[in-house]
Amino acid sequence: MKKNGYLKILNQILKIMKPQTITFLIKCPDKKGLVAKITNFFYEEGFNIQSCQQYVNSIQKTYFMRIRLQAEGVVISKNDLEIKFLELAAPLKLMWSVNYEENKSNLAIMVSHTSHCLYDLLERYKEGNLNCTIKMIISNHNKLRPIAEMFNIPYYYLPVDKDSKEQQEREVMNLLNENNIDLIVMARYMQILSSNFINSYPEKIINIHHSFLPAFQGANPYKRAYERGVKLIGATAHYATVDLDEGPIIEQDVERVSHESTPQTLKRIGADIERLVLARAVKSHLQSQIIVANNRAIVFPETGE
Amino acid sequence: MKKNGYLKILNQILKIMKPQTITFLIKCPDKKGLVAKITNFFYEEGFNIQSCQQYVNSIQKTYFMRIRLQAEGVVISKNDLEIKFLELAAPLKLMWSVNYEENKSNLAIMVSHTSHCLYDLLERYKEGNLNCTIKMIISNHNKLRPIAEMFNIPYYYLPVDKDSKEQQEREVMNLLNENNIDLIVMARYMQILSSNFINSYPEKIINIHHSFLPAFQGANPYKRAYERGVKLIGATAHYATVDLDEGPIIEQDVERVSHESTPQTLKRIGADIERLVLARAVKSHLQSQIIVANNRAIVFPETGE
Amino acid sequence: MKKNGYLKILNQILKIMKPQTITFLIKCPDKKGLVAKITNFFYEEGFNIQSCQQYVNSIQKTYFMRIRLQAEGVVISKNDLEIKFLELAAPLKLMWSVNYEENKSNLAIMVSHTSHCLYDLLERYKEGNLNCTIKMIISNHNKLRPIAEMFNIPYYYLPVDKDSKEQQEREVMNLLNENNIDLIVMARYMQILSSNFINSYPEKIINIHHSFLPAFQGANPYKRAYERGVKLIGATAHYATVDLDEGPIIEQDVERVSHESTPQTLKRIGADIERLVLARAVKSHLQSQIIVANNRAIVFPETGE
Amino acid sequence: MKKNGYLKILNQILKIMKPQTITFLIKCPDKKGLVAKITNFFYEEGFNIQSCQQYVNSIQKTYFMRIRLQAEGVVISKNDLEIKFLELAAPLKLMWSVNYEENKSNLAIMVSHTSHCLYDLLERYKEGNLNCTIKMIISNHNKLRPIAEMFNIPYYYLPVDKDSKEQQEREVMNLLNENNIDLIVMARYMQILSSNFINSYPEKIINIHHSFLPAFQGANPYKRAYERGVKLIGATAHYATVDLDEGPIIEQDVERVSHESTPQTLKRIGADIERLVLARAVKSHLQSQIIVANNRAIVFPETGE
Repeated sequence: MKKNGYLKILNQILKIMKPQTITFLIKCPDKKGLVAKITNFFYEEGFNIQSCQQYVNSIQKTYFMRIRLQAEGVVISKNDLEIKFLELAAPLKLMWSVNYEENKSNLAIMVSHTSHCLYDLLERYKEGNLNCTIKMIISNHNKLRPIAEMFNIPYYYLPVDKDSKEQQEREVMNLLNENNIDLIVMARYMQILSSNFINSYPEKIINIHHSFLPAFQGANPYKRAYERGVKLIGATAHYATVDLDEGPIIEQDVERVSHESTPQTLKRIGADIERLVLARAVKSHLQSQIIVANNRAIVFPETGE
Repeated sequence: MKKNGYLKILNQILKIMKPQTITFLIKCPDKKGLVAKITNFFYEEGFNIQSCQQYVNSIQKTYFMRIRLQAEGVVISKNDLEIKFLELAAPLKLMWSVNYEENKSNLAIMVSHTSHCLYDLLERYKEGNLNCTIKMIISNHNKLRPIAEMFNIPYYYLPVDKDSKEQQEREVMNLLNENNIDLIVMARYMQILSSNFINSYPEKIINIHHSFLPAFQGANPYKRAYERGVKLIGATAHYATVDLDEGPIIEQDVERVSHESTPQTLKRIGADIERLVLARAVKSHLQSQIIVANNRAIVFPETGE
Repeated sequence: MKKNGYLKILNQILKIMKPQTITFLIKCPDKKGLVAKITNFFYEEGFNIQSCQQYVNSIQKTYFMRIRLQAEGVVISKNDLEIKFLELAAPLKLMWSVNYEENKSNLAIMVSHTSHCLYDLLERYKEGNLNCTIKMIISNHNKLRPIAEMFNIPYYYLPVDKDSKEQQEREVMNLLNENNIDLIVMARYMQILSSNFINSYPEKIINIHHSFLPAFQGANPYKRAYERGVKLIGATAHYATVDLDEGPIIEQDVERVSHESTPQTLKRIGADIERLVLARAVKSHLQSQIIVANNRAIVFPETGE
Repeated sequence: MKKNGYLKILNQILKIMKPQTITFLIKCPDKKGLVAKITNFFYEEGFNIQSCQQYVNSIQKTYFMRIRLQAEGVVISKNDLEIKFLELAAPLKLMWSVNYEENKSNLAIMVSHTSHCLYDLLERYKEGNLNCTIKMIISNHNKLRPIAEMFNIPYYYLPVDKDSKEQQEREVMNLLNENNIDLIVMARYMQILSSNFINSYPEKIINIHHSFLPAFQGANPYKRAYERGVKLIGATAHYATVDLDEGPIIEQDVERVSHESTPQTLKRIGADIERLVLARAVKSHLQSQIIVANNRAIVFPETGE
């Protein structure tokens, strides 16, 4: 009996979850009672619900939830939690993912020859403002290596031309896969990726486009913005999809310009928007704030995190 | 038995709630299980939860909820709903209020001699964009009467000077009370109200201040903004409290200005910010988006309404 | 001799210019000495230069100037001023126009069934914030007549269908021409105008498009903005040209939206941007702040006016 | 004769100005003919006027000009130019300064323990976007030395406490003076400087304050912004004056926040505004865009530079 008692305690110890924030992202057909059922489930498992955000798309009759749980003192293993949740999820047709704070995402940054977005991400990372591990920088140019060295991040120079494109992408993919990369940030990587590459990382590639999409899709947006005489310029962070510049938009912002702004000035003003927009998008992704549906990114606002 | 059956049906018919949106605003000490319990309550009463927004102030350990219910096909009277909800609310120490879409708020607008905010509110009202009944305009000047007449709203001219202040306020309060006014909008009413007046309408008076509070509290904010050489000017809509310009802030916005802006230019640019900020604040109030705590206004975002 | 003296005085009296602000807009090939020569000319004629704004397009090698003169105590007739200026202008190849404050522009507003821009312009006009005379409102619907009546502006209802288009445009043009209209404001006039119509009023038609151009050119921009999942929506005021939605952009602005925004919400939020953007563009035009070149609108900032 | 010819050529060679942009900043009592006279002077000396910006403060009857000259092919020494200009300036009571593009400003950055503004400035500097030489970083803490080392900038650690304050300031001033520092950027230097220090560098110290001044002057602005429940937070770059946080404002910006924002979140959001605002202010100073008068900073917009 004593033995049994010990085992029980041991068992419980093994199952005690590390105190941390756990975030579930949920998408399902809308119906009555969803909030009640889901919040009840977590309540009964002993979680404290830090925040619970919902969105109902009444056109698509779809329900979305982001729920953040505090695991303080909860006695259940991750595995058991997920198995139990499945029992709730299946009849309600929930599609879901879960993120444990303790599991940091692995990040790869891809760049070409523009440095401002790279600097910005590395700086935030170094200052502890990006909850991830930046595993590597991959570039088709060698130009930005010194920045990688300043910040002590491995830099892989994989040049590419028409003939080597397939081969180069294979090498990139090998690097990404070997390093268990969870998120690829294209911080001004000026190469069009193949469908094969993009489809291998669905909703795992964030790209920054240097215009206020859908305006000025494609090449030379600042030059075209100048020629069109727009009074505001912008930048757009989006998930990469096979249709170039048409993936789900995560974040956008703009800045006022004037007729005095030359294409060169626009580029400089735009660089500051690009940096901010990309950093916010990466942060939203890392904090599990995003659910994609119908090519639209539902980005739940931060809730005091 | 047959008789009983009829009665039952009749009873149900009488209790069937008009299909409409019902909004509960809830504030209480934070504890585990609140979302689950509250959402469960409404689910079991047959409501469809349109949206459920929460905010936890972890410094004050306080929980806030705005929950919007769709009453389609729900068989319960308002009275019974509220009595039942009380049973849930009491042990959890909920402070709460409920708003039924069918009960339109009665609004009074107070003005002096500046017309832009008045025009703006009347225009939105006339176009069906403010869910309320504007019962009257009250002014200490006769100047804006023609605008009231254009829009067919009763206009009460109640002049005021030092000696008549108490008497005038009494007349204003009589008007407000006789007309069951739910919300008083001070659309640039340039008189300081007595504590007695303000305390009679807690969180029921919205004032627009023509600066980005707490900058430039008090008189002549545009002149002072000019002298200080600020690069942005703003406006602030807040609930009126006894401490002038220190009530809970509902909405603020700013616009860029330059050294070229004279005090007169600032006033003109500012007028457009005032209009927008006041209109947004009134809309948020009418849509039951606001809970006040510790002199801070929690303004839940619109949820597809 | 005495006679001569009287004549001289009389002559001078006749030539004394009304004290007022006169604005010259100038465009010419860039070369050395332009500012010096032009400002010198006005200085020697006795004008006080209130402001002198320039822009050099170094790509096109073109020079632009907006110069505002104070005519206080200047002894020259308008006619003589312009003849003398011509002598300066011809060798320097200046293209120029001049606006005398005393000559108010005549405005016509064209609308269909959306009222917010119309209300906004009429309100500003009534409050004395638009330096013009609004001569008429022309519509292809009768719906907004009550607003015209509220503000006492003549309303012309000229319905149009496929077969009557040519005839209706002729009637509109007759109205515009008979009333010496200087500026046509399309405040959400939902008809495509013929090339003939548009070419008759070059840089004299301001249109408001309910998107951040060049994004969402054409029909249903709010619906398309919703579907694309943009995070900001905007509005654009531009001169109408034969290429629909491609005329020179005068003013743009945006507002943040979220996934919660339905097409209906976007429309409502957008309406406030449209109003502001159109009002600013009309004001810039009326204050002679705009020069168009290569389909770009150079909009000089206000200078304390 | 031949000798004379050689001398002449030699003389001209010595006097030929390096092709570069020269910027004059001018302030004087307003009177008729200023633009004409000043632009004429430079025209006759053979300069091409790249841009000529003016501002008339009609309340103070003061005239301000920023004029940018292209020295291509101009045959005059700097010295002679300035002597000649003096002849024009004296009778018109011009106060003026001149900046030659070839003379780069020397910059010192002062920091305490917050790194975001420092990183940002160094990054822009390294990328060639700040036209200056960053000579040193001075700090009362040793914490940010590694960043200085990353960017190869000398770092001086000069700790300070109540008793050593006078001594430390003397050491700082020695460093600044020995290095011919033209501009001191207080990139979150959290020490109050003595009047003696500040008065030694009039309009040569730019400070970043982490609030939208004049709101939240003094300590802990983010905490106070949280408590006041503002809906936007901001940052302000200004010249340091003896009256703390009351110097002439160069640049400000704001970002929207919500009730969800904790003091910690405000700090993070604010950091991005601080960076941008400080960088813009430093750039405006380095490009000679600023004239101060009556504690207001006139910041002329960039003109295609």
